[in-house]
Amino acid sequence: MASASELMLLGTAESPFVVRVRMALHMKGLPYEYLQQDLFDKSDLLVSSNPVHKKVPVLIHGGKPVLESLAIVQYIDEAWSGKAATILPADPYQRATARFWAAYADDKLYDAYVGINRAVTEEGRAAKVVETLAAVEQLEAAFAQSSNGKPFFAGNSVGFLDLAVGCHLFWLETMGKMSGVEFVDTGKTPLLAAWAKRFGETEPAKQAVPELDVVVEYAKKRRASRAAAAAAAAAAATAN
Amino acid sequence: MASASELMLLGTAESPFVVRVRMALHMKGLPYEYLQQDLFDKSDLLVSSNPVHKKVPVLIHGGKPVLESLAIVQYIDEAWSGKAATILPADPYQRATARFWAAYADDKLYDAYVGINRAVTEEGRAAKVVETLAAVEQLEAAFAQSSNGKPFFAGNSVGFLDLAVGCHLFWLETMGKMSGVEFVDTGKTPLLAAWAKRFGETEPAKQAVPELDVVVEYAKKRRASRAAAAAAAAAAATAN
Repeated sequence: MASASELMLLGTAESPFVVRVRMALHMKGLPYEYLQQDLFDKSDLLVSSNPVHKKVPVLIHGGKPVLESLAIVQYIDEAWSGKAATILPADPYQRATARFWAAYADDKLYDAYVGINRAVTEEGRAAKVVETLAAVEQLEAAFAQSSNGKPFFAGNSVGFLDLAVGCHLFWLETMGKMSGVEFVDTGKTPLLAAWAKRFGETEPAKQAVPELDVVVEYAKKRRASRAAAAAAAAAAATAN
Repeated sequence: MASASELMLLGTAESPFVVRVRMALHMKGLPYEYLQQDLFDKSDLLVSSNPVHKKVPVLIHGGKPVLESLAIVQYIDEAWSGKAATILPADPYQRATARFWAAYADDKLYDAYVGINRAVTEEGRAAKVVETLAAVEQLEAAFAQSSNGKPFFAGNSVGFLDLAVGCHLFWLETMGKMSGVEFVDTGKTPLLAAWAKRFGETEPAKQAVPELDVVVEYAKKRRASRAAAAAAAAAAATAN
């Protein structure tokens, strides 16, 4: 049984990957100490725990760092395998499929929606909106295949792929608000839209997902600072 | 027990990710049918098995496709868990560490050495050589930590991380030959160099790794076709 002092999570409020880990910790009913990080002024603990990438989330268990959110979720499931709900499915084929789509969510969906906020031109932004919509449509098909008519990706209750995709929902909502686009749409992706609503009402999501207004404010600040940097670079190029 | 007809692998000779899966299949002593793919003229079977990425490797087990090499290796280990050697370590923390470094090999090491061959300028190539050397040095540290004085990443015998890093060795050698750089160097990375030699002498590596000359020829062709495409694009830009 873990005590909060032997389990620490280094994170930021807006990181979907941190939210994913918090949801997994909640599913297992594990108490932990949360240490909010400033990525613009990285703590010694973050740098020494993850010297390769210097990124959050980092889970520190009994003094040992566990890195990369999907590996952390699997670690939580395996290290506390007898406790509460299991996160990964038991069947090897379902595990492989869940791992495939989890990687898809992080590679394609995340890159696409983060790209909306990183783009410095309207054309660039529009292209990333299209990419995000395409990734969500792929996940609609994945949901149909994986859930097999049941309410969650993993079947009757929340599992690995629900956490892996579900942690991105509040960012899709944030980018949707800022772009005027409904990414998870009851018309185009009805299964995913119904799942998103159900998932948002689960305890892990309610405990871990930040307030949308906070994320929108964060995203606006990041966008503004990127636009300012791009404008400064353009001005410097003209001056030369 | 799998028969060759119920287990098929779609691959190409030069893909490190296909070699990784072949090594895992060999470790488990599983017979399979190997179907060589042409990535410039993709087969219907490849496209229908992996409609999202249309990439190799694809393992087809009893008609069902398993995708992404690291997920495939874990699938092989889990679906035939009672058979032959285990591939992943049993300890949750060692599993998490192995998954972290496997992702590192695919993200940082692969991107760096493939970048050497993809670069169309000498400066670009030199930068990727530096990146590759840095990634290999990181893996030297990872080996020291993971092997704990034993001959392989996984300890006394080959495991998940040995396959995950080991499948990249023949490409490091290929890029080394073409760049005049010894990437896995007995002076700079002595642990990794000794491991690479040991790993190359294991049965999974001997069975799965292609002849170096074939890979060098392949890499030269790809480099030449990229250079030609870049020259054509530059000429078109001048003409406009």
